[in-house]
Amino acid sequence: MIPTHPAPAAAFPALAPLCRSIATVSISGTLAEKLAAISAAGFTGVEIFENDLLYFEGSPADVRRMAADHGLAIVLYQPFRDFEGVSAARLARNVERVKRKFDVMHELGTDRLLVCSSVAPDAIDDDALAIDQLGELAKAAAEAGVVTCYEALAWGRNVSTYRHAWKLVDAVNSPNLTLALDSFHTLSLDDTPDAIASIPGHRIGFVQIADAPKMQMDVLEWSRHYRCFPGQGDFALADFTAQVVKSGYQGPLSLEIFNDGFRGAPTAATAADGHRSLLLLEALTHEELAKDNNATAGAPLYTPPAAPAHAQWQFLEFAVDAAARERVASLLDKLHFRRAGQHRSKDVTLYRHGSAAIVLNAEPDSFADAFFQRHGLSLCACALRVDDARLALERAAGFGYQPFSGRVGPNERVVSAVQAPDGSLNYFVNEEPGKPTLFEADFVLTDVDGPTEVGPIAGIDHVSLSLPAGSFDSWVLFLKSVFGLQASAAVLVPDPYGLVRSRALFSADRGLRVVLNASVDQHTAAAQTVRAYHGTGLNHVAFSTGDIFRAVTEFEAAGVPLLRVPANYYDDLEARFAMSADFLDALRQHNLLYDRDEKGGEFLHAYTETLDQRFFIELVERRGGYDGYGAPNAAVRLAAQARQRARAAREQTE
Amino acid sequence: MIPTHPAPAAAFPALAPLCRSIATVSISGTLAEKLAAISAAGFTGVEIFENDLLYFEGSPADVRRMAADHGLAIVLYQPFRDFEGVSAARLARNVERVKRKFDVMHELGTDRLLVCSSVAPDAIDDDALAIDQLGELAKAAAEAGVVTCYEALAWGRNVSTYRHAWKLVDAVNSPNLTLALDSFHTLSLDDTPDAIASIPGHRIGFVQIADAPKMQMDVLEWSRHYRCFPGQGDFALADFTAQVVKSGYQGPLSLEIFNDGFRGAPTAATAADGHRSLLLLEALTHEELAKDNNATAGAPLYTPPAAPAHAQWQFLEFAVDAAARERVASLLDKLHFRRAGQHRSKDVTLYRHGSAAIVLNAEPDSFADAFFQRHGLSLCACALRVDDARLALERAAGFGYQPFSGRVGPNERVVSAVQAPDGSLNYFVNEEPGKPTLFEADFVLTDVDGPTEVGPIAGIDHVSLSLPAGSFDSWVLFLKSVFGLQASAAVLVPDPYGLVRSRALFSADRGLRVVLNASVDQHTAAAQTVRAYHGTGLNHVAFSTGDIFRAVTEFEAAGVPLLRVPANYYDDLEARFAMSADFLDALRQHNLLYDRDEKGGEFLHAYTETLDQRFFIELVERRGGYDGYGAPNAAVRLAAQARQRARAAREQTE
Repeated sequence: MIPTHPAPAAAFPALAPLCRSIATVSISGTLAEKLAAISAAGFTGVEIFENDLLYFEGSPADVRRMAADHGLAIVLYQPFRDFEGVSAARLARNVERVKRKFDVMHELGTDRLLVCSSVAPDAIDDDALAIDQLGELAKAAAEAGVVTCYEALAWGRNVSTYRHAWKLVDAVNSPNLTLALDSFHTLSLDDTPDAIASIPGHRIGFVQIADAPKMQMDVLEWSRHYRCFPGQGDFALADFTAQVVKSGYQGPLSLEIFNDGFRGAPTAATAADGHRSLLLLEALTHEELAKDNNATAGAPLYTPPAAPAHAQWQFLEFAVDAAARERVASLLDKLHFRRAGQHRSKDVTLYRHGSAAIVLNAEPDSFADAFFQRHGLSLCACALRVDDARLALERAAGFGYQPFSGRVGPNERVVSAVQAPDGSLNYFVNEEPGKPTLFEADFVLTDVDGPTEVGPIAGIDHVSLSLPAGSFDSWVLFLKSVFGLQASAAVLVPDPYGLVRSRALFSADRGLRVVLNASVDQHTAAAQTVRAYHGTGLNHVAFSTGDIFRAVTEFEAAGVPLLRVPANYYDDLEARFAMSADFLDALRQHNLLYDRDEKGGEFLHAYTETLDQRFFIELVERRGGYDGYGAPNAAVRLAAQARQRARAAREQTE
Repeated sequence: MIPTHPAPAAAFPALAPLCRSIATVSISGTLAEKLAAISAAGFTGVEIFENDLLYFEGSPADVRRMAADHGLAIVLYQPFRDFEGVSAARLARNVERVKRKFDVMHELGTDRLLVCSSVAPDAIDDDALAIDQLGELAKAAAEAGVVTCYEALAWGRNVSTYRHAWKLVDAVNSPNLTLALDSFHTLSLDDTPDAIASIPGHRIGFVQIADAPKMQMDVLEWSRHYRCFPGQGDFALADFTAQVVKSGYQGPLSLEIFNDGFRGAPTAATAADGHRSLLLLEALTHEELAKDNNATAGAPLYTPPAAPAHAQWQFLEFAVDAAARERVASLLDKLHFRRAGQHRSKDVTLYRHGSAAIVLNAEPDSFADAFFQRHGLSLCACALRVDDARLALERAAGFGYQPFSGRVGPNERVVSAVQAPDGSLNYFVNEEPGKPTLFEADFVLTDVDGPTEVGPIAGIDHVSLSLPAGSFDSWVLFLKSVFGLQASAAVLVPDPYGLVRSRALFSADRGLRVVLNASVDQHTAAAQTVRAYHGTGLNHVAFSTGDIFRAVTEFEAAGVPLLRVPANYYDDLEARFAMSADFLDALRQHNLLYDRDEKGGEFLHAYTETLDQRFFIELVERRGGYDGYGAPNAAVRLAAQARQRARAAREQTE
């Protein structure tokens, strides 16, 4: 069924020059604000969505000038609806309608019009008729010197797949009628993109890219409200885009994102995320192409330095003042961390237990100080140990994240860092054989033997952040693009005062695990945490242990306040899982939560009470390859924490 | 297929005593907070949702005592899942599982357990097997002295309709296995409730009530996140409940609402809305029953005084100080309102044009003054002319809205009032023949001839309010219950900075029209309005006119600043509607927006610029029975207003 025209040669031609574009409907603001932000983000092309033109107080020629002033090419005008499958009378009227749009396009200075497959309930289901009428469209387009791009909407009345649309376009056989592709319309229907590669690239007039979370809902509603930037959703977009590249298509890759959140989000930041999401997609597409073909060299896809193959937590750095340092140090002491070093030139202290390292930074007039002034006691930096710190920084900077340099004392290490979406720092650290480690270079170590096992904590299992709702997808993109992390599907967790959206990101070897939480509602613990921090904040650090019973016994004896779990939880656990009475008793006695996966992997975990109404510590033991985070227990923990908060509030007022 | 057992007599028995109940999952908070709020709202029964028990730090007996202290009966424990359609081995385990739940129920002091139809992918599709196994359930329940209530989930693997569930329950034929009904599971599938009336009422063990907006999505997701209180959604619940009453069912009517918004909303206010939504449902059910049967007298359904048959705007009252009064008075003057009276004892002025009346209240130490202190220039009261003000107040008070009385001077009228969800007042006014009108009684009228036609404004067409998102559904319930208004379906309108949810409510004779708007995002005009007002606020008043061309010509000449509409809008209008070039020119010349309905009804409207960044005036002319609000033009208006705001901001900084 696929093409009657010759396919391109096996070594597909280059996508050159690659134009990265975005539809104006994807971001918030007035048309003037949108064009400025799109240009600033690095795009070179823009699709003008008709409504943006209608609302604009100026002529199409004014829009053309405005775009040109920003260095943007208007690569498409869209959409034109319900052209084909109509009566003869209606066709005549449609031709008149489309001619007016061609006039607008001439004024706008664009030669491409998106024409969507008909959705009219009375659209006639007759391919021969559709071919005739699309032929009329092509004729009118030829007279006007423009190109129409025919797109199968996933909810099109008669034409809903790109294969069907291509059949019609191919039959018309005119350079003025091309095929338009949109990843959403293909992937939302679980359609496969494999036939795209065999469509001649020059017959594809336009390619739109959108991601989306997998959802069980009406495809039109899904498309209109829940699309997101590539990498933020669940679609296999690199595979889709690889097929497009293989076809020989040389036009723009353009984001067309209908997203309720983006409509209300800051214009410039959203545009910036859009641009880096396209870069990430290109990088992944390049990897995809490299798998089955070594002829990717010619494709001008963005190819950043590779993500770190092995990344792990080097240390977590907290911004503190003297009082906050005392509170945190006291908790660390009870968790049997030892004070391992003092910074050579700054008021910075290092604590260690197993491979876990915590840095408390009270240096005046520093980045940490500024962070403390703004956010209070907070996680101001994470250091990640990687194979090549310079490459990691280059990769991050290539995706548009801001590199950062702080003051460095004599003989201290210069550490590369990049700013995360909340302005906190991510350091990239590599250690070379025979050279002093970062800790040796920068700290006077009080425990020169290095990390010996002094207690039950092995290291950092994961870090959990509470985010403002609007920054959730920005963080997903940051962690995916900078560190090459993968993302689990998002889940909704019930807090007693509302829902919390949660998503885990992790590296291939699980050396790095980050859990992101954003509250849907105003009154949850997660929302309160965000308010307490005046922005994104650490929700908790989970330390891994090989023996959680030993860990909680030791720590409780040392005075660590563990979160109490209700007895009813254990009654229900017994009904859900087969387990010995002794084991159940041991869990109950130590306030341990429990989960088991389908393969029998087990997860035992406990929580401390919350410090400063901000963050708490989790202790986790993974058995038998358990790879989750105890999601079924999250609601139990949140309810227990809500009780703790209520108790604390009562004690304060008494 | 429906019952083998005798149906109840035509004159169905009374629902006595009626127990109004709600499931704990329907509102936010800890279990203790939930029970307190449920009791305070007026409920006498409560369903304990299992998770609320699991998260509770105390025994089931503690929950029983807590509920009893609040005067609440625990009418149900829920849910129990995946009992039937299983292997023999699994059945034995399920019987053990359910026996443990019976133990919990004894401790809780409840005799009813909700058992949901199986959703397990491997559930065996065999009615005979299901009947056998549900028989085992009934036997175990009989031994424990409890009643199980079997419910068909809309997404049940094999049993998804109440008809199917009833067939199984009927076949088991045990008093310990009854049918549970849930309006959502029936109405979400577009199933009809008519067969319910012929099921013997004593075989129905429990009835859950939930409303929901009509949505095109997976029914499970829809159920878990979008249910709402009766009257807030789109289901025909009075019809459903009438069938339940006809069956002779005498148990509780219980709200089971899974709603993401309610999970994050204030506990007490949500519970109060839940209770009044049940009262409204009962009232509507009573009306429904009265239609086809005069034997409703015995049913203990709540029957409030009838809603006003004819209600119309008497006046809108603004809280002002001297400066704000001058600004509003200046605008009213340009709109050719005349100053028609001065209040006899207060610093309150009356303005009139046609039947539209505006009252500006600057009285110190009054309700209006308090409102001004809190909200600034704002709509502090609406007066509605009704047939019987006393009855209207009784109705409102019966639904739990707070009556209000202000100071009254000598010979002035005592006017009944009730507080709306935002604390503003709704006065009920009736005028009796031969007696002084309210205006005559309270004002020294400067224009004693009364309302003569002095300009193009006929009266108030509608009033539009900007609401905090969380109060949207509370307002729907307020307007439906107090005034008996009907609601259109909600629509989403794009503002340049986010989406706005909008819904119109109106009386049968269209004497009263109110449009509610709530912003989904933080940066829209609607969200800014809510912030400017520190709460709910007037967005605009639409005045009706019989000649909008005359109106805008006169008002522009008088210096009213009309909102400018972009030329591109008219180009598009021409493409969408057939209309004469002259007519189109006239629209363009006067910045008039235009809409046409399917029957040819037409809507012409214009807007003033925004006063104090708060509210504006709309002028509307309805032709040929047009019944909408020009929704297709809302986005054009919002974009034009955004430009106006940006211009104003620029001028301020220059």
